[in-house]
Amino acid sequence: MDYATAAPAAVRELIRQGKLTGPTTGYCDGYAQGNLVVLPKALAWDFLLFCQRNPKSCPLLEVADAGERSFSRFAPGSDIARDVPRYRIYKNGVFAEETTDVSHYFEERGDLVSFLIGCSFSFEYALLEAGIPVRQIEEGVNVPMYNTNIPCESAGVFSGNMVVSMRPIPYAKIPAAVAITAGMPRVHGAPVQIGAPEALGIVSLAHPDYGDAVTIKPGEMPVFWPCGVTPQAVVMHSRPEFCITHAPGHMFLTDVKNSTLNY
Amino acid sequence: MDYATAAPAAVRELIRQGKLTGPTTGYCDGYAQGNLVVLPKALAWDFLLFCQRNPKSCPLLEVADAGERSFSRFAPGSDIARDVPRYRIYKNGVFAEETTDVSHYFEERGDLVSFLIGCSFSFEYALLEAGIPVRQIEEGVNVPMYNTNIPCESAGVFSGNMVVSMRPIPYAKIPAAVAITAGMPRVHGAPVQIGAPEALGIVSLAHPDYGDAVTIKPGEMPVFWPCGVTPQAVVMHSRPEFCITHAPGHMFLTDVKNSTLNY
Repeated sequence: MDYATAAPAAVRELIRQGKLTGPTTGYCDGYAQGNLVVLPKALAWDFLLFCQRNPKSCPLLEVADAGERSFSRFAPGSDIARDVPRYRIYKNGVFAEETTDVSHYFEERGDLVSFLIGCSFSFEYALLEAGIPVRQIEEGVNVPMYNTNIPCESAGVFSGNMVVSMRPIPYAKIPAAVAITAGMPRVHGAPVQIGAPEALGIVSLAHPDYGDAVTIKPGEMPVFWPCGVTPQAVVMHSRPEFCITHAPGHMFLTDVKNSTLNY
Repeated sequence: MDYATAAPAAVRELIRQGKLTGPTTGYCDGYAQGNLVVLPKALAWDFLLFCQRNPKSCPLLEVADAGERSFSRFAPGSDIARDVPRYRIYKNGVFAEETTDVSHYFEERGDLVSFLIGCSFSFEYALLEAGIPVRQIEEGVNVPMYNTNIPCESAGVFSGNMVVSMRPIPYAKIPAAVAITAGMPRVHGAPVQIGAPEALGIVSLAHPDYGDAVTIKPGEMPVFWPCGVTPQAVVMHSRPEFCITHAPGHMFLTDVKNSTLNY
């Protein structure tokens, strides 16, 4: 199977069977992938409110009902507990295990609420379509991500600063990159800042807080977008009793095309 | 004071003093107005989830913390309990009273959660700017609104069909009307349908379910947008123990300009 052109449901099936456990970058061209956060119902109100107040870093695609194991709107027939290649489990904010199947957690407790959050993979596809380079794809590494001094709006127990991802863009293509991503608010939208990392509190672009450093060529400027790592960082900061997330780069594949996300 | 050009905070102050109790149509040109729904915390999760799942009819601008009486982001210093010209109180889904001050409800119970929902007044301003007629403004009546056969995504106790507002638009201006409103997703966004009321289950355009009928001239087509009456209709349908809404047309005035809503 060519994973780049395969249907998301077919790839989810392979993941469910344990036959695919790697990162989902480049899978199912044109279809949206999402960040996963699973929390006990007792924390779900605060987290939903946090996402509502911080839509740029936490653009919600779907929230399942408490105990529900499927994203029935974005991926009918999916199994949230088995369709992500790798999950991470955190207990009281401490990393507990990485696994490929979290069914038993859903079976043991009926109070889990699953949140699907938009991912920059979607807008990178649109940038590439428009001939705008995406450096970390060219270099075969993870996108560089940085903690910033931009406070998120807090909600209940959840508070913290925005995490941004950075892509170096040639001067002449920055306006197009802004316009294209501004038109995709459900997958982070427009950049938060262009060209002044120090104003975000970023000390060294060569030393990202998450992911890998990438080359910035002459004639390029670093452009910073709100990042889907923000909700995970904020959740961990509050040390929730229990939390499941996807492992970085191992996203949930949806049946919804990026091009239809806003309509 | 010329209410059309006045600052929202100044008009809210007059409303708070009881000096203005009428509809807010035409107030504070360029600033967003919002629909208000206030519910007990016990129902707030279901309602927030309902809004997340139905962003076209229920575009959330802000959700206050439980017990909080101010929309601190959209209107710093505001008093949710006194800054709307007219409120309606419902108990167990039955209309109880219309009043200009709901302070004592907020004082008696600390569990009220206030939701501010985007309003089509914002996109009407943009349509007028673009030379697109808005018939109910020309005719000095309320916009006609209709129940439809389009089911909303349900969430917990809340379910029901979408309510739409209708504006007749000249054939040649429909594409611009679609494009302009599609660019404003936080105030209902693009139309749900153009020109085929029967497909929405609307029997007679001359007999709206809410608001007033307007003239459709030769060369015009009825265009239907998701309507902010949807969340109120859905909430009432579920007969909540307690609910406060604004009275139709008597909106909450925010300090946020329509033109910045998406950024």
